[in-house]
Amino acid sequence: MDYAAESLRLHYAWAGKIDYAPKMEVKDREALSLAYTPGVAQPCLEIQKDLNKSYELTGRHNLVAVVTDGSAVLGLGDIGPEAGMPVMEGKCVLFKAFGGVDAVPLCIRSKDVDEIVKTVSLLAGSFGGINLEDIAAPRCFEIERKLKKKCDIPIFHDDQHGTAVVVLAALLNALKLTGRRLEDVSVVTSGAGAAGIAIIKLLISLGLKNVVLCDREGAIYKGRKKLNGAKEEIAKITNPEKRRGTLAEVIQGADVFIGVSAPGAVTPDMVRSMAKDPILFPMANPVPEIMPDDALAAGAAIVGTGRSDFPNQINNVLAFPGIFRGALDVRASDINDAMKLAAARALADLVGGELSRDKIIPEPFDPRVGPAVAEAVRQAARETGVARI
Amino acid sequence: MDYAAESLRLHYAWAGKIDYAPKMEVKDREALSLAYTPGVAQPCLEIQKDLNKSYELTGRHNLVAVVTDGSAVLGLGDIGPEAGMPVMEGKCVLFKAFGGVDAVPLCIRSKDVDEIVKTVSLLAGSFGGINLEDIAAPRCFEIERKLKKKCDIPIFHDDQHGTAVVVLAALLNALKLTGRRLEDVSVVTSGAGAAGIAIIKLLISLGLKNVVLCDREGAIYKGRKKLNGAKEEIAKITNPEKRRGTLAEVIQGADVFIGVSAPGAVTPDMVRSMAKDPILFPMANPVPEIMPDDALAAGAAIVGTGRSDFPNQINNVLAFPGIFRGALDVRASDINDAMKLAAARALADLVGGELSRDKIIPEPFDPRVGPAVAEAVRQAARETGVARI
Repeated sequence: MDYAAESLRLHYAWAGKIDYAPKMEVKDREALSLAYTPGVAQPCLEIQKDLNKSYELTGRHNLVAVVTDGSAVLGLGDIGPEAGMPVMEGKCVLFKAFGGVDAVPLCIRSKDVDEIVKTVSLLAGSFGGINLEDIAAPRCFEIERKLKKKCDIPIFHDDQHGTAVVVLAALLNALKLTGRRLEDVSVVTSGAGAAGIAIIKLLISLGLKNVVLCDREGAIYKGRKKLNGAKEEIAKITNPEKRRGTLAEVIQGADVFIGVSAPGAVTPDMVRSMAKDPILFPMANPVPEIMPDDALAAGAAIVGTGRSDFPNQINNVLAFPGIFRGALDVRASDINDAMKLAAARALADLVGGELSRDKIIPEPFDPRVGPAVAEAVRQAARETGVARI
Repeated sequence: MDYAAESLRLHYAWAGKIDYAPKMEVKDREALSLAYTPGVAQPCLEIQKDLNKSYELTGRHNLVAVVTDGSAVLGLGDIGPEAGMPVMEGKCVLFKAFGGVDAVPLCIRSKDVDEIVKTVSLLAGSFGGINLEDIAAPRCFEIERKLKKKCDIPIFHDDQHGTAVVVLAALLNALKLTGRRLEDVSVVTSGAGAAGIAIIKLLISLGLKNVVLCDREGAIYKGRKKLNGAKEEIAKITNPEKRRGTLAEVIQGADVFIGVSAPGAVTPDMVRSMAKDPILFPMANPVPEIMPDDALAAGAAIVGTGRSDFPNQINNVLAFPGIFRGALDVRASDINDAMKLAAARALADLVGGELSRDKIIPEPFDPRVGPAVAEAVRQAARETGVARI
């Protein structure tokens, strides 16, 4: 199928992918008096007395804003807020379809960190959580950090943390299959944007020690010139040997490759230069850093990509709907690392007895995924004290 | 029925009055590839090439934000953004039920004019129009004025203009019934807040000359001390004789009373002091400035209130759904006076042969209302050059 043409045709037909549907009929005066004035004054007064009641008497308990500035939409780059809207509407559709979460797309006409932070924080009382989406690095880090400080509801940049959760789940199973431990392996990335940095931070929090991130200039090490703030920070906790050089150089001997960069970044020769039975997650979309068949032919033990037409699809839809479902269910004030780790472990565990080189992660349409992730997240939220009910 | 108790019970059961429902099922990989990646990239690129396509390929063409700061909610006053949410959700329900318009409630945690203006204007690319709601005067005037200047979509403060449209419609028919012309009558108001000032501005634009607004201090006249900006401005174009005194004093001899203030502001004696066959619209909610039976017994020719249990209910739901329906249909850049006048005339005309002292305005549930108002608004938008399709 020509997905581009067919999707465009459907988008014209849909003319917006979300229907804002009242839960009640308003067909007579009595119905009007109950859903609106004068009856509605009573729930208003209840919330005024106790702000927590806004989670019981309005849609806030199940409502997430999907927020972008349109600066890093898919692989399309900075296409602007209006042009980013079809993706945000799509994300809202997935929230509902995979997690039962109501979601509203908000595209902001600004690329200024403080303007975006202000806008979102002033709206926080209308939502139970905020999903940041497709905001360019390194701006996205600062926006998330500031919002987390200002808001009493979960702030979650899915491109970072959703991706990190699913990669971690896939990696846990890949390590199990190849008889390795995270503490012992060496990891090399291609790409040090939002996703790459978030993935590595999560892996480090779980015990990974030996890791080198590469950007277009090659290996990132402490003291390298012209690093932005986020790269400078990650340089402090990675690449302990301060290795320098191109990806082709630092990938030699590595156990694991994680790609969040561009097509063709990895060659079969580079795979052959890695440790025995290497694990590769070339996730550039739609064309991976190396095609799975080429990687396997060059000796890869396990390959996962972002694509649905190969095994082991590392797809964010496995994580964010269940994560927000769980966070909303316990009225979490935050989505913290413990909740992300719990989500990743739940995903990895779901594969169970089916675990094989072609099945290290559940299928996106496995109906057990959302509920299992949500349950793990609820539990972790309670254990770490961020659950409010 | 105890509307307060029953409404509260229902609000707990609804737990939010809007369901954010995807228009398509996402049950397999193909559906996912069309509603989301990779297919969704194509509509994004189309919008990037031509921003107008955002009205065809996303929900924007039919989507209004209902925005408040929670500072003047119903008659409850400044109850805050979270406590205002049940009313905003209710408004969204009415938008859909009466106008087929999708609406999202956004409650802003700020009472600063510029913060509110900034927040809303940065979100304007996500919506086809903005309905401001329950924002206290005089702040609401400045917010609306600044937003109208900044945004290329309609900004409409319903408490002002929706009310003004319905009052004008009722008054046109009441004048017709009592054989008067707007140019010749004298009008007195009780209340000089957002609604009162907007009503009088609209009436003046249509030819009204003799009008005195009263606030708690009595008649407003040019030069009165401590007037806020909005009252100072309205003082310049009203009360040409600079009459001073209480409402009871200036109402003497008036043809029309318009009340947007508080219960009991008008006594039977005050009605008796008005001109013969006076028209009274005591619209304080839920208890009017004078009860209809008392006004009629004191000689009123025609009485309209905000209540559904008396004839002539002056209810905003007659106006805003059709006005936005019409504005969105022609992708209007503004909702201007011509569109408001057209809406009022369409409402007045709908009463037709049924016109009587007990029927000067259509019933809210008359199914002809929304379409008739929308058609009048579309036509006026085209004639005044604000229609973009």
